[in-house]
Amino acid sequence: MSRKLTLVGVGPGDPELLTLKAVKAIANADVVTYPQKPGEASLALSIAEDHVAANAIRMPINVPMKVERGPAQRAYDEIAKAVEQCLADGKSVAYLCEGDPLFYGSAMYMIDRLPNAKIDIIPGITSLTAAASAVGRPLAARNETLKVLPAPLPSEKLMDELEQTQSAAIIKVGRHFDRIRDVLEKTGHAQSAVVVEYATQERQKITPLLEFSKDDRPYFSTILCYKGDEAWGM
Amino acid sequence: MSRKLTLVGVGPGDPELLTLKAVKAIANADVVTYPQKPGEASLALSIAEDHVAANAIRMPINVPMKVERGPAQRAYDEIAKAVEQCLADGKSVAYLCEGDPLFYGSAMYMIDRLPNAKIDIIPGITSLTAAASAVGRPLAARNETLKVLPAPLPSEKLMDELEQTQSAAIIKVGRHFDRIRDVLEKTGHAQSAVVVEYATQERQKITPLLEFSKDDRPYFSTILCYKGDEAWGM
Repeated sequence: MSRKLTLVGVGPGDPELLTLKAVKAIANADVVTYPQKPGEASLALSIAEDHVAANAIRMPINVPMKVERGPAQRAYDEIAKAVEQCLADGKSVAYLCEGDPLFYGSAMYMIDRLPNAKIDIIPGITSLTAAASAVGRPLAARNETLKVLPAPLPSEKLMDELEQTQSAAIIKVGRHFDRIRDVLEKTGHAQSAVVVEYATQERQKITPLLEFSKDDRPYFSTILCYKGDEAWGM
Repeated sequence: MSRKLTLVGVGPGDPELLTLKAVKAIANADVVTYPQKPGEASLALSIAEDHVAANAIRMPINVPMKVERGPAQRAYDEIAKAVEQCLADGKSVAYLCEGDPLFYGSAMYMIDRLPNAKIDIIPGITSLTAAASAVGRPLAARNETLKVLPAPLPSEKLMDELEQTQSAAIIKVGRHFDRIRDVLEKTGHAQSAVVVEYATQERQKITPLLEFSKDDRPYFSTILCYKGDEAWGM
């Protein structure tokens, strides 16, 4: 295990959705590192917590929440340097990543910063499939296209992508919620769209988009959109 | 556990990529059911095998591999009836599904066939994130769109979808491989496209698309496409 960095997908929130492989990597790590927002506990750590060795070193990454990318880049630069030092000292490091490391995850920022490190990657359950399981509705079936669309994209781009699409998931909704609702109403996806907040966590909440009160904002959410015949009809 | 159907995502192939939740559901099932192609062993069962209870009933689903959907539909009708009978007898049933049950999975066909059953769904690692982890390359980052495109779609539709897209995954490649290669060459994605066969399985094979010999065909594969700046640059 030593001198190796493992990027560990810890899944969407339910600790039971850790894979056997992730549990082993977490338990065997000399050092665990994980992003956290200033003043907030790390979700990734809380998911993995029960498996972290008692004598493991915990190395949180404080990621500034700014629109400009400089401060976050510097945080990842710093953690990469710290990880490199741990590896040089013969320690094994697990980078804990919510969801999957390579599906919009921050763990990927280690890959080009550590070109000489031995890096293993353990995939995790994404918020996407977690949301679908929570709702009990297929993401896509047979020969349907599935699109993952980050909400910060311009409305015109989102509408273009949604126009010809039955099945889509909107991620990173946050402060873009009102605009996204407008877009989905225009493209005909709003009727069947479902907002999934905190998928698989205890505070999970599922709300049809059109039932969301106009003053409300969803937290930590994915919106699943489906237009047309039901995907699971076979 | 009794009188409940659980749709269990067993992941892409590596049994270590089962989740803790899936392992429990498999171990506690009175009946396990799983699709298999005529004359082939079930991949889903082989992944879960070590956790199936010794006295569990095994109920394979023989899914005819035909282009027309009638024969497959009848197979799912039949298995739904058998599952219903198991539930009525007070048994718990686990439906084992490669990858994730709601991401192009067959398990979803149980949902509308068993409207009165209590159904739990356990998400699984998809072939998509498994392939990305195998290659060590991000699927998508920040505000990029990610498209999942089934290869049987017409070439024109695929080209339309790829034109404006940096990041895409082509699934269900099979006999469409030559056509897909042509499409990706035309849209500018071929240069960096990677073919991942049998992701996470022992026979896993990773080949740059352009290095595939013209007479060769990939098996059980996903093609990851990326055009533009590297996704993980931050």
